[in-house]
Amino acid sequence: MEPKRDNVIDLTDEAPRWPPAPFTARDHASRMARTIRLAKQAGLDGVLASPGPDLRWLTGYEPPATTERLTLLILSTHQRPMLLVPALERGDAMATAAATGVEVVHWDDERDPCAVAAEYLPPGGVFGVSDSTWASHVLGLQRAMPRNRYRALSACLPLLRAVKDAGELFRLTAAAAAADATYHEIVRMPFAGRREEEIAASLAGLLRQFGHERVDFTIVGSGPHGADPHHEAGDRVIVPGDAVVLDFGGLMRGYGSDTSRTVTVGDPGPEVRRVHEIVRTAQQEAFEAVRPGVPCGHIDRVAREVIGDAGYGDRFIHRTGHGIGVSTHEPPYLVPGAEQPLEPGMCFSIEPGIYLPGRFGVRIEDIVAVTGDGGRRLNNTDHSLHVVE
Amino acid sequence: MEPKRDNVIDLTDEAPRWPPAPFTARDHASRMARTIRLAKQAGLDGVLASPGPDLRWLTGYEPPATTERLTLLILSTHQRPMLLVPALERGDAMATAAATGVEVVHWDDERDPCAVAAEYLPPGGVFGVSDSTWASHVLGLQRAMPRNRYRALSACLPLLRAVKDAGELFRLTAAAAAADATYHEIVRMPFAGRREEEIAASLAGLLRQFGHERVDFTIVGSGPHGADPHHEAGDRVIVPGDAVVLDFGGLMRGYGSDTSRTVTVGDPGPEVRRVHEIVRTAQQEAFEAVRPGVPCGHIDRVAREVIGDAGYGDRFIHRTGHGIGVSTHEPPYLVPGAEQPLEPGMCFSIEPGIYLPGRFGVRIEDIVAVTGDGGRRLNNTDHSLHVVE
Repeated sequence: MEPKRDNVIDLTDEAPRWPPAPFTARDHASRMARTIRLAKQAGLDGVLASPGPDLRWLTGYEPPATTERLTLLILSTHQRPMLLVPALERGDAMATAAATGVEVVHWDDERDPCAVAAEYLPPGGVFGVSDSTWASHVLGLQRAMPRNRYRALSACLPLLRAVKDAGELFRLTAAAAAADATYHEIVRMPFAGRREEEIAASLAGLLRQFGHERVDFTIVGSGPHGADPHHEAGDRVIVPGDAVVLDFGGLMRGYGSDTSRTVTVGDPGPEVRRVHEIVRTAQQEAFEAVRPGVPCGHIDRVAREVIGDAGYGDRFIHRTGHGIGVSTHEPPYLVPGAEQPLEPGMCFSIEPGIYLPGRFGVRIEDIVAVTGDGGRRLNNTDHSLHVVE
Repeated sequence: MEPKRDNVIDLTDEAPRWPPAPFTARDHASRMARTIRLAKQAGLDGVLASPGPDLRWLTGYEPPATTERLTLLILSTHQRPMLLVPALERGDAMATAAATGVEVVHWDDERDPCAVAAEYLPPGGVFGVSDSTWASHVLGLQRAMPRNRYRALSACLPLLRAVKDAGELFRLTAAAAAADATYHEIVRMPFAGRREEEIAASLAGLLRQFGHERVDFTIVGSGPHGADPHHEAGDRVIVPGDAVVLDFGGLMRGYGSDTSRTVTVGDPGPEVRRVHEIVRTAQQEAFEAVRPGVPCGHIDRVAREVIGDAGYGDRFIHRTGHGIGVSTHEPPYLVPGAEQPLEPGMCFSIEPGIYLPGRFGVRIEDIVAVTGDGGRRLNNTDHSLHVVE
């Protein structure tokens, strides 16, 4: 597929100024129009977005709370965008509507909101639905409109948000820079004698200090805990000789950060050094394989082969990466066999790891943006094994 | 329906000691067994619980993060409880499994988790699904097992978590007491000249100080903002004469708090006083109507009639209340026409309000537990109009 020129990012441009101007009504209107166009091409009659990343990306709207009450943006090929909200949310929704030109319709507590939604959906249509829409709502829509069919957006329009525009790349770059600053500060702090959760609290504080409005995860996996890729942080006291996996991120101006480094407290011995070097090489080679047109699965394979050739193939127990944008995990996914070709403007993590149960783990992760002819790291802290105190 | 004796709470008992002992493997096993029994009675072949309140209540398990990766507890009438998790979560899940006796099965990133789940579900079955399960998962299950049918748990087993046991009531009572302590402290602070969001930050800090591990909402609706029931808190500076709606809560030891009071900065004038008195009366009469056997809709009607008779019927724009437990909003809902009879051990909010657009709002909310012969407030701060500085 020919790269679309308007999506090619010129990262050599002088950096725009921070903070970025908010996305405008025009930005949102154009995202909604593009969504309807893509939906039509995919054989859909429309897209239904509930509170979460899709709705935020499409309209900028985020209700005060995500609850059992149905809030639903209805984008269809038959009518103008419509936001169905609980009566309680009308005030908040109107502020958004004024900014984006969606029509607001509300339902009262005594009505079945799915029946109200049915009045606005053409019967017999096929609709893409936000992945994180509650089951109760999608089952309610199926009940209210048995002739309609529904598909998860990640299945029917997986790339809807995958190619970032310049404003999005700017935010992702800034969020990554804040995560890098967090790493620079954390490795200057003492590790030995502190509990994992203390380091995690420092990571969260630093992310906020450097501009994040939300901290989503602060993984501190020391010693044997590092062998559990999703171990968060506990009361284990870090000791000299530990390898410590750090993996942290959140949202800054609505866009995600996510980076991992593995540090050691003093000299960890030859095996940790060797494993770290294997992971470093896997990450580097996977990064170097990034360019438009290459299938996602190829990037995964490159990383997996380096680790496999070194004899640790069965210790790399997760995918190589995931897209990132208004949500931390989103398409494209760098998983074995994925055929989706990379396109300029896509952003995702490259995060191979090796996990030795009961002993230690190593992971190195950067967010990478696809450029016109390769890839560019948004995270830029040193990949060599960093020794902390 | 005859009240079950083991659910009748004797709130005259001496208070047990805080913090409560954690729920045991036996507690969880008995909840799972009861769920399977109720599912069978409701014509279901099983229950599928994804991360969130249902899974936490059933097993105590909460994965490190809720993501696009499927985590699913399978309770069926055909086999022992089974927890399907991403390979990444295996470590966390095993810790839970050891505590509750569920069997852990994991899926790898290169597989379709719904296809893995299909191997454990009898074809042609009807399953209740947690309300907040992601649409992508429920649609994936439908695709993987087209002969199975799925229903939202709130529709097919609405009362699964509605009747609280003694350990749950103890936690809800303590969470309400912490919210009351928060209210006592907040009204001693100055309001005039401060921004809503500053008061909200104080509310959040106090809730945490009094033991909440999570703050879910801190509504501060001053002056005209009070007329928007879900207005959170903004940069409006509070001025003398304002009525200010405060509505805050979160989770303490996994159980919810939720209380509202409306205060005024100095004398607000006769209309606010009158409206406040109407809301106070509506809340009081609705509370007095609580007893086993009374339909939920009756409590709503009592509150609505007081407000309607006073001429503000169209300004009470939401339901009278919602159940509360491991989630802040859950069945039973006190909505017009709801026929569900109250049972001892049910816990819910009673929160009538009057909202005058562009001017002010008033809401008073307590959590109430149904006892053997009436209701008991878990929130006990004064209902009279409190004047702050």
